[in-house]
Amino acid sequence: MSKIFEGKTVGQSVEKIDSLALSQGKPLFTDDFKVEGMLHAKFLWSPHAHARIKNIDTSAAEALPGVHAVLCYKNVPRVMHTTAGQGWPEPSPYDTTMFDNKVRYVGDRVAAVAADTEEIAENALQLIKVEYAPLEPVFDLEHAMDKGAPVIHDEPDCKYILPLVYEPKRNHCAHIDIDVGNIERGLKEADFVIKRKFKTHYGQHCAMEPHACICYFEPNGRLVIRSTTQVPFHTRRIVAQCLQIPERMIRVIKPRLGGGFGSKQEILFEEVCALLALRTKRPVRLVYDRKEVFVSSRTRHPMAFWMETGVKKDGALSAIKMKVISNTGAYGSHGMTVMGNCCAKALPLYRCPNIQFIGDTVYTNLPQAGAFRGYGVFQASFVMGILMDEMAEAVGMDPWEFWRKNTIREGESHPIFEQVGEVGKGVAMIIESCALPECLEKGATAFGWKEKRAKYKKQPAGPIKYGVGMACNAHGAGVPKIDMASAFAKMNDDGSFNLLISAADIGTGSDTIMAQIFAEALDISIEDVIVFSADTDLTPFDRGAYASGTTYCTGMAVVKMADKIKDQILTVAADMLDEPKGNLRIENKSVVSTKNKKKVEFHKIAKQSLYVNNQFQIAATASNATAIPPQSYSANFVEVAVDTETGEVKVLKYVVALDCGTAINPKLAEGQAEGAILQAVSYALTEQYHFDKNGRLLNPSFGRYKIFSTSDIPKIKTILVPSYEPSGPFGAKSIGELCIDCVLPAISNAIYNAIGVRLYETPFTPEVVLKALKEKQAKM
Amino acid sequence: MSKIFEGKTVGQSVEKIDSLALSQGKPLFTDDFKVEGMLHAKFLWSPHAHARIKNIDTSAAEALPGVHAVLCYKNVPRVMHTTAGQGWPEPSPYDTTMFDNKVRYVGDRVAAVAADTEEIAENALQLIKVEYAPLEPVFDLEHAMDKGAPVIHDEPDCKYILPLVYEPKRNHCAHIDIDVGNIERGLKEADFVIKRKFKTHYGQHCAMEPHACICYFEPNGRLVIRSTTQVPFHTRRIVAQCLQIPERMIRVIKPRLGGGFGSKQEILFEEVCALLALRTKRPVRLVYDRKEVFVSSRTRHPMAFWMETGVKKDGALSAIKMKVISNTGAYGSHGMTVMGNCCAKALPLYRCPNIQFIGDTVYTNLPQAGAFRGYGVFQASFVMGILMDEMAEAVGMDPWEFWRKNTIREGESHPIFEQVGEVGKGVAMIIESCALPECLEKGATAFGWKEKRAKYKKQPAGPIKYGVGMACNAHGAGVPKIDMASAFAKMNDDGSFNLLISAADIGTGSDTIMAQIFAEALDISIEDVIVFSADTDLTPFDRGAYASGTTYCTGMAVVKMADKIKDQILTVAADMLDEPKGNLRIENKSVVSTKNKKKVEFHKIAKQSLYVNNQFQIAATASNATAIPPQSYSANFVEVAVDTETGEVKVLKYVVALDCGTAINPKLAEGQAEGAILQAVSYALTEQYHFDKNGRLLNPSFGRYKIFSTSDIPKIKTILVPSYEPSGPFGAKSIGELCIDCVLPAISNAIYNAIGVRLYETPFTPEVVLKALKEKQAKM
Repeated sequence: MSKIFEGKTVGQSVEKIDSLALSQGKPLFTDDFKVEGMLHAKFLWSPHAHARIKNIDTSAAEALPGVHAVLCYKNVPRVMHTTAGQGWPEPSPYDTTMFDNKVRYVGDRVAAVAADTEEIAENALQLIKVEYAPLEPVFDLEHAMDKGAPVIHDEPDCKYILPLVYEPKRNHCAHIDIDVGNIERGLKEADFVIKRKFKTHYGQHCAMEPHACICYFEPNGRLVIRSTTQVPFHTRRIVAQCLQIPERMIRVIKPRLGGGFGSKQEILFEEVCALLALRTKRPVRLVYDRKEVFVSSRTRHPMAFWMETGVKKDGALSAIKMKVISNTGAYGSHGMTVMGNCCAKALPLYRCPNIQFIGDTVYTNLPQAGAFRGYGVFQASFVMGILMDEMAEAVGMDPWEFWRKNTIREGESHPIFEQVGEVGKGVAMIIESCALPECLEKGATAFGWKEKRAKYKKQPAGPIKYGVGMACNAHGAGVPKIDMASAFAKMNDDGSFNLLISAADIGTGSDTIMAQIFAEALDISIEDVIVFSADTDLTPFDRGAYASGTTYCTGMAVVKMADKIKDQILTVAADMLDEPKGNLRIENKSVVSTKNKKKVEFHKIAKQSLYVNNQFQIAATASNATAIPPQSYSANFVEVAVDTETGEVKVLKYVVALDCGTAINPKLAEGQAEGAILQAVSYALTEQYHFDKNGRLLNPSFGRYKIFSTSDIPKIKTILVPSYEPSGPFGAKSIGELCIDCVLPAISNAIYNAIGVRLYETPFTPEVVLKALKEKQAKM
Repeated sequence: MSKIFEGKTVGQSVEKIDSLALSQGKPLFTDDFKVEGMLHAKFLWSPHAHARIKNIDTSAAEALPGVHAVLCYKNVPRVMHTTAGQGWPEPSPYDTTMFDNKVRYVGDRVAAVAADTEEIAENALQLIKVEYAPLEPVFDLEHAMDKGAPVIHDEPDCKYILPLVYEPKRNHCAHIDIDVGNIERGLKEADFVIKRKFKTHYGQHCAMEPHACICYFEPNGRLVIRSTTQVPFHTRRIVAQCLQIPERMIRVIKPRLGGGFGSKQEILFEEVCALLALRTKRPVRLVYDRKEVFVSSRTRHPMAFWMETGVKKDGALSAIKMKVISNTGAYGSHGMTVMGNCCAKALPLYRCPNIQFIGDTVYTNLPQAGAFRGYGVFQASFVMGILMDEMAEAVGMDPWEFWRKNTIREGESHPIFEQVGEVGKGVAMIIESCALPECLEKGATAFGWKEKRAKYKKQPAGPIKYGVGMACNAHGAGVPKIDMASAFAKMNDDGSFNLLISAADIGTGSDTIMAQIFAEALDISIEDVIVFSADTDLTPFDRGAYASGTTYCTGMAVVKMADKIKDQILTVAADMLDEPKGNLRIENKSVVSTKNKKKVEFHKIAKQSLYVNNQFQIAATASNATAIPPQSYSANFVEVAVDTETGEVKVLKYVVALDCGTAINPKLAEGQAEGAILQAVSYALTEQYHFDKNGRLLNPSFGRYKIFSTSDIPKIKTILVPSYEPSGPFGAKSIGELCIDCVLPAISNAIYNAIGVRLYETPFTPEVVLKALKEKQAKM
């Protein structure tokens, strides 16, 4: 295995740099900001899943005292764009306009009001008269592309700006074909072929902080957008596009975020808030309530999979055939890329020579799906994780052995990378760091896999049955050829530094991570690093927080920038110590000579450079563009108890052993792992969108959409297994999404282990489990 | 003469970039900022000019409801420091501590209170019981160093951190000797020797915005100082010193300033406001009222000069002997450097082989002097300007001819530069740009010098007499080997740029100037440049706004930084156009090939570099350290009417022809010229500090300290005569102080021309003029 990095700051579980402020309840968040004369904005939402708007009369609303502006399709520019906050040109369809004369789901935008108070705004919404001509809706993703199905996007100006497959007239949002090896031969050569259909369901991110945006003006008239965004620069670009003004007129500030999980990688409403501010010449505040978050922000893509996998007697995979239909809801957003990730990021885990992927994304008249932690890998890993378990069973191997045999190793490459061309068309990406074998080893030992597998062969009497399941995954860091981040730092009089980055800390602690990386690079302590992020006017470009790429991409920009700073420091020190630069090295906030005992402290170097001789500001900027998506790995082991009388599944113990390369901050890495597992367990066992027959969400509240709370947390043990990724900062890879991917299959496999029932559809609610048990008993 | 720069943006009178916001009354200034829970601070001032504080009892004040903290010498750290905001190590004495057990002038600090309201704070001040032991005061600068005079700084911990002459026991703050050539020989060789004594008086900067400071805390606990400062970084450094905390704990923000003129190149009270905030853990606001500005901020140094000058029959200067005593008031502050500038910056104008300078700065029990536009050059130019007129008269030359003959020319050097060693000990500075001869030419023509001189040989009947006078000066840009500035910029998606600088725009328009320089360097328009200044956390180091150095020093940092940006742009364009970089040049927001018609716009280059290929943030930082102080020049012509019955002097017409190199923004340059002239005319004719016999200022208000208002403005004509300074940005030098220096001598000379009376003391109030007339008549 590759080397392991041991740092002085990197690898230490230092406290989050904003922890004190957070614990004291300081006004860090978007909506903590008050600005004089601020108006409050509210949306009018569609009550129909699919309808044409024949007319809107906003005159009564406009006449209401305290109302300052009403926007609807009649008085806003029609600019087709995507709300997905991605690189440019976006790989997402331009199928959205600020307001349209058609509504496409219950909760779609109809109008927006800005008024003196929220109450007046709400009252004004009641006064807007809308004449709808209802249309037949499309709800079933499997039938969305059927001939004769109602067309959701019949407007003529929908398009991709990249040459991608797009047939809006068929509700067909995106299509991808990937072929590696020869799938027919792979299936033919298999000793066992397993053919299954899988389904995954809607889900909500449930960030504690709802979506919020406050738009106001700088004294010089420029527009400031203070927003709960994971992507400040993409927000600036897309709002500029929607408002048809240059980017220079807009400044986006990202305050502290109370969670994102992908939901805030979206230009959700910033353009409306901005236009209301421009129209009223007043600051405008727009904050979603929880119901609006559920209905009208973004959700996880529900998907249906049709799978065929082949395995040889010796346990070697010979074929993976994955056909998927992903439901993007009423608008495209991340529909293409989430579906694409089912292949591009999930399948390169498997040592399988023959792979076929056929992916389609469809429109339906249901809430919009978007980016969500896991981003396709989550859904595909569910499917593959269960199939791996089934194939192991088919060939009579322990799943642990089967996973070990069929997953990628250090030094190998994977043909999907070449085929997808993320790294470069036809370019092989050699896996430079993979500690998955060690993860399997350590995870199994800590969990007691063998013992528990043996133990639960014999189930206790009574209704409660026990089982263990496992699954592994790979999750690549960032998006190669798309992701770019930069960093700037300058040295202060006392030898401390200001670090300016646009990495969007969404609660993950990335500001702390960057401070640690910078401190490590310069052998200073974290107190010497004053981090400022993210403000499109003041901090250099960053792609934003998504795709598990912040540590990997921005972290490397910080390393590169620190190298420049280091060189400047050595130049000054060489002059001060009268020694050639080659004899000097940095050590503990000083430069020391390797030839003699001469030494000069950073604060003296700072003062010298700023004030004394050959003066200059020690400062540098550097960028880092992601070239490859190195994979992080996890091996997951779960123990469940299934109540065969109630159908309730309880997670008793969860062990994850993971390789995220160097864990810059082990405590934060563990926090990411635990948070992801909890989020997925909750999704697996309780969370669910219930729609009525008209496509209306019935449970848009925490009262009725049950998420796990502290008391529900299962016992989670996280084992960090270090590896060293040469392309990452101090060997780091990624951790943000890694641990969410395997929870579903591991639980499904454990349920099977406990009660002999395989669940191919999420969620695993008591009703589902009971139903499956009954079906099993009926067959027996 | 050297070349002249003709630019597309540089040389254009574009509007100030903050003009719209200013004209709309937007909250740009320090005190426009409100922060929740803010306390209000007030000082208790000394009623004695010189006294020891035997005891202070603050208990009653502390007990007053609404009072949160009381500071006095008993409960603050005693850190000797200078309040002068200069480079480090400071050339000013460490003779000040936050509060002392001695007061040294009427208006010296005794205590400070922070309370819920200003009223409560005022009431609390009344409750502080101070027992003073009055000491004999020293008021007369000429007798401050007398043996047996009361010692103002008898504390043992006063010191310079540089090895400078300092005898606090003699009230002797600073001493400088400069000898060039042989003064004795020079005087001996002279055909005419003129020996005179001169005196200049106290004066107030009278910035419309008083000194204000608001201290508050970032959510993470760091201290933010929002202050009316010309020197954000020096403020950070010196407050850190006073509070004995590292610089990293402090962030200084400089909002828009309503004038500085040097008064805000001072750490006036920021450390007290900061300590009150730290003690109370609350935001604290400290704003001087106008009386406090007059008494307890800073003033112009009153000086006394003993002069001997020698001139040969042919009109050639042979000797200048200048002995000066400068009154720094109760504390040293800028006392050393202002006095030094009388020689270093004022005298290198004169082609004179033998120069002797003996300068002393003394302490008195009067208000503290500090930096003030002109900064010693003002006082010395007054003296020299009159002497030049007298010497011309002595040799029978027209003053115009005499100035022309005896002032420095392009290609020459001046021995004082070598002697002072600013540029480098023994290093000659060759004058690379000097349009003073053209200034003399053009100014005289526009003014009608010859005609008016001839005309006023015969005075009209009646009490009103007319006269014309002239004077020239040189004023160097910045402080070589001390001044350093840096700049950062990054390119946005639309091809615009954020320019981050710490140049402190104090109303001069330096933000606009920097935008013009940057726009010129990249051939973009000023709308493409979004300027942000100045915040010690976010913008790179800058020495601040003083010594006429911003355009010259920071401007060149911007040029150097823009060169790096240009190179990056060309790199991207070369790739996009598939042309070697050498074939490409920047033209009107595009890169064009000189070989073919290929062209690519900046916004495309921006998008390409941020999103598409070989991605990086086009961004750069660069510093510029001032190596030489290139001189700007002005030739001043004034016409006055003197009422011989009332003594009133009226300025009828003022023509200044000036060479500031390239005028980056002619309108702003003219504004600087006109503002400076007005400020000096007001000082010359009406402004005056009146003290009672106990050293108490009698007229600390605009009602009683008369400054010129709009209705008093004389007709001023400014003629910009371009030259090209190779070391400056696009040939620019400086303009901030240039035009204040010659107003006094020109007026004095014009009065002499009108009524035959020479005034060697400022101001030229009606009483003074009448008295001089009477003395003249008595002699006749």
